[in-house]
Amino acid sequence: MTIQTSRRSGGRQARHAARTAPLSEHIRPVRAGLSGGQYKPLSDDGMTRIHQAALTALEEIGLADAPASGVEIMTGAGAIQGTDGRLRFPRALVEDMLAKAAKEITLCGRDPRHDLQLSGTRVHYGTAGAAVSMVDVEGKAYRDSTVQDLHDAARITDRLDNIHFLQRPMVARDIPDNREMDLNTIYACCSGTTKHVGTSFTDPDFVDDGLEMLHLIAGSEAAWRARPFVSNSNCFVVPPMKFATESCRVMEKVIAGGMPVLLLSAGMAGATAPSTVAGAIVQAVAECLAGVVYVNAIAPGHTTIFGTWPFGLDLRTGAMTGGSGEQALLTAGCAQMHRFYGLPGGAAAGIADAKLPDMQAGWEQMCSNVMAGLAGLNMVYEAAGMHASLLGFCHESLILGDDIIGQSLRCVRGIEVDDDTLALDQMREVCLGGSGHYLGTSATLARMQADHVYPTLGNRSSPKEWVENGRPDLLARATARKQAILNEPAAARFAPDLDRAIRERFTIHLPR
Amino acid sequence: MTIQTSRRSGGRQARHAARTAPLSEHIRPVRAGLSGGQYKPLSDDGMTRIHQAALTALEEIGLADAPASGVEIMTGAGAIQGTDGRLRFPRALVEDMLAKAAKEITLCGRDPRHDLQLSGTRVHYGTAGAAVSMVDVEGKAYRDSTVQDLHDAARITDRLDNIHFLQRPMVARDIPDNREMDLNTIYACCSGTTKHVGTSFTDPDFVDDGLEMLHLIAGSEAAWRARPFVSNSNCFVVPPMKFATESCRVMEKVIAGGMPVLLLSAGMAGATAPSTVAGAIVQAVAECLAGVVYVNAIAPGHTTIFGTWPFGLDLRTGAMTGGSGEQALLTAGCAQMHRFYGLPGGAAAGIADAKLPDMQAGWEQMCSNVMAGLAGLNMVYEAAGMHASLLGFCHESLILGDDIIGQSLRCVRGIEVDDDTLALDQMREVCLGGSGHYLGTSATLARMQADHVYPTLGNRSSPKEWVENGRPDLLARATARKQAILNEPAAARFAPDLDRAIRERFTIHLPR
Repeated sequence: MTIQTSRRSGGRQARHAARTAPLSEHIRPVRAGLSGGQYKPLSDDGMTRIHQAALTALEEIGLADAPASGVEIMTGAGAIQGTDGRLRFPRALVEDMLAKAAKEITLCGRDPRHDLQLSGTRVHYGTAGAAVSMVDVEGKAYRDSTVQDLHDAARITDRLDNIHFLQRPMVARDIPDNREMDLNTIYACCSGTTKHVGTSFTDPDFVDDGLEMLHLIAGSEAAWRARPFVSNSNCFVVPPMKFATESCRVMEKVIAGGMPVLLLSAGMAGATAPSTVAGAIVQAVAECLAGVVYVNAIAPGHTTIFGTWPFGLDLRTGAMTGGSGEQALLTAGCAQMHRFYGLPGGAAAGIADAKLPDMQAGWEQMCSNVMAGLAGLNMVYEAAGMHASLLGFCHESLILGDDIIGQSLRCVRGIEVDDDTLALDQMREVCLGGSGHYLGTSATLARMQADHVYPTLGNRSSPKEWVENGRPDLLARATARKQAILNEPAAARFAPDLDRAIRERFTIHLPR
Repeated sequence: MTIQTSRRSGGRQARHAARTAPLSEHIRPVRAGLSGGQYKPLSDDGMTRIHQAALTALEEIGLADAPASGVEIMTGAGAIQGTDGRLRFPRALVEDMLAKAAKEITLCGRDPRHDLQLSGTRVHYGTAGAAVSMVDVEGKAYRDSTVQDLHDAARITDRLDNIHFLQRPMVARDIPDNREMDLNTIYACCSGTTKHVGTSFTDPDFVDDGLEMLHLIAGSEAAWRARPFVSNSNCFVVPPMKFATESCRVMEKVIAGGMPVLLLSAGMAGATAPSTVAGAIVQAVAECLAGVVYVNAIAPGHTTIFGTWPFGLDLRTGAMTGGSGEQALLTAGCAQMHRFYGLPGGAAAGIADAKLPDMQAGWEQMCSNVMAGLAGLNMVYEAAGMHASLLGFCHESLILGDDIIGQSLRCVRGIEVDDDTLALDQMREVCLGGSGHYLGTSATLARMQADHVYPTLGNRSSPKEWVENGRPDLLARATARKQAILNEPAAARFAPDLDRAIRERFTIHLPR
């Protein structure tokens, strides 16, 4: 037989029809939680040296600016406050707290089918950030982000198979009151998707209201505590080696409220962290280990993500940059350190410095996303939609990110080697008196769905077909898909009674 | 101190000026031949199983269609021709020839500073392919490729630091006579760049003329044989498991002429090779091992590249696809098998299915390029400029590929861990009574050039600066750079006497 390339070919039509139908979950070629780890940027000796340097930094340099409550908690556990006010951490204390820390955690979705199991090298991709602008693709412009943009991002995320969680990617700048902004952030995210949501309280005084809303959504405090579907991103340190006093107080409150915690250290390599990849990782690890002591001194085994998020810097300008090879290495190296400790971890990847979803955005988002996955990062934050070095969020880019992450996940899934995949029997059959061709073999047909990730918007047609189809534009297609998703009924929205109850208790800015 | 973000800052201006000056070779952050290998998609057991399956395939299935000369050469060495005409290879024969095969080779540039040393996991990126069309970015159109396009690609490649060699990426379709096309391909490439050139003779009868031209360019046959700066890409098999009779005869002739050989097996996974990643690698390895027997039976230790190039297929349509995660795995798995054998190897990466240099092209080109490098592939072919699943070549994309490969090489270089990079002393100095900031430290300033790869055309400005600068368009900037390069004098062009001698002997289509 020959390759069937005719557009009228029955074989091709049958294959296309088979593939266009929705895939049952069990034969989807990729999914949340595939195991990576085939890529190891650090040697065993390198990891040990980073670990030892971090312990030395905690013992000798320590961290400044802990709140009074934190000083009490951590010195109670064995940390030592110096006359300079800095808290220092004996090696044995860190090792003890590492032993107490949760090694396998579940981040719940409001819908349990979206639960994320964090352990080993299991990989999940999602959004995150605090962008202040939205990218208007058609107008090639940046404008302030709003709570409606945030809600739309949640609704789009809900529909994208390869975006596994929604951490708030942008700030609702149309809500000037910070308390209302925090509460509306939770509302906008949770009413848009049943996937796990990440938020970040700006003030400890807002946490009680937030928990009250979450209890309403869950049905009761007990239901919330049984399956907390929102985690809090705590920028608990201001690198280098200082606690963020207010954020620590937020952290103490959310732990008491049963909310999972992301211990986030966001140093900038060359500014607030050493400029070297290894040095930036050492400092981030040291800071997050201090966080592990802090959290586990409050609540041993509390659900916590080890969030070493060092960012790159363009040393020529002093401005942040996230689309570089250095960024990909920072994140992949962190992923390996998470494995060194056996702790569930997260870091940032997928950041574009490009202002628009252009070719630069494509290469920048893929580089760190695929390397993070191959390194086995449990939570790949900022993985889709982020432009201008985190200043801008873009719905079209979020949608195209689903394709990027789909291919990344295929790479994470890796190369299966067994008698079937080695295919010696097929080779014998095809070469020795057979058709001389594999396209029609039963093995090929059986695997065409389960083995291959087909792009949703990426275009694979020939130039001839592409011209015949009117030269489909990638961004125009992404915009059309965005509009289609937002025109559908919002599947995740709250039941009318619940929505009414929330709106009676809180000022909700989104229209009913 | 604070981060200096002011555009008028003296510090920033000084840093920018320092960085804008050309870098001396010894402090360039990336270069040809960096060692990869941190990414291992196959386990040791997986590699052994692939090796054993390939040996079994060679022993039991063998290859059909060897030319009479090849049958004589290979049976003379110990291969066995069956009654079905297929040549089968006992395991011991393959092992013997592997022992004789060259393990470290040099691919010469016409200028020795472009020599490529292939061994271990040393990585080099370059062009390749046989595209039949040129992508017109501004007109969003495909047109036939010409010898002038090929020459322009050579001239552009000559100026791009991260494109290390020029294998002919497209066919000169304006030259209908195949002999003239082959000779003009050599002329167009070699007169455009002093980097190593790859070509591919279409007929054994054209090789003598080609060698005559190369002797002229080198100055003499002895000078050519001392430093052969052109290799021949031999599609010596027609997968599955058949020799390409004519291409084998080309190979015998170029070996006699002292030309390095790329043993190229280009199966399509799911059509001419098994659809599984592992199976496609098995078949490619088996075919190239047959090639190793062939070459080393003729000339033990001849300069040879083990060219397992399995391509992906969209099983829905039966059309080739090169931008997928499956393609990246195919190539990375092959790179690991090259290391298993200790042979210099090459494979294809960087292929875009996208028709234009858009976001899809960016993610597709980055995915396989960075994974090929991290897997330690010696020769990353097709790494820049290829669109429409190899049907189209694009000069703008070649130029942007230099940025993609620069970041890929930064990832290949990896994370250095030593006392300096761990930066404990810097942390102490900065945190304990110091500035609290790393941007101005001597360690940061000392490393800002040697550690960081800055994009040439990639844009890192803030949205505000970007608007002030008139929203620079990535593709327009690439087109401008193309025109600037092509407006410069061609540095690699032949001396007038040599050029005259070549033109007297051969019909050269490029204008003087």
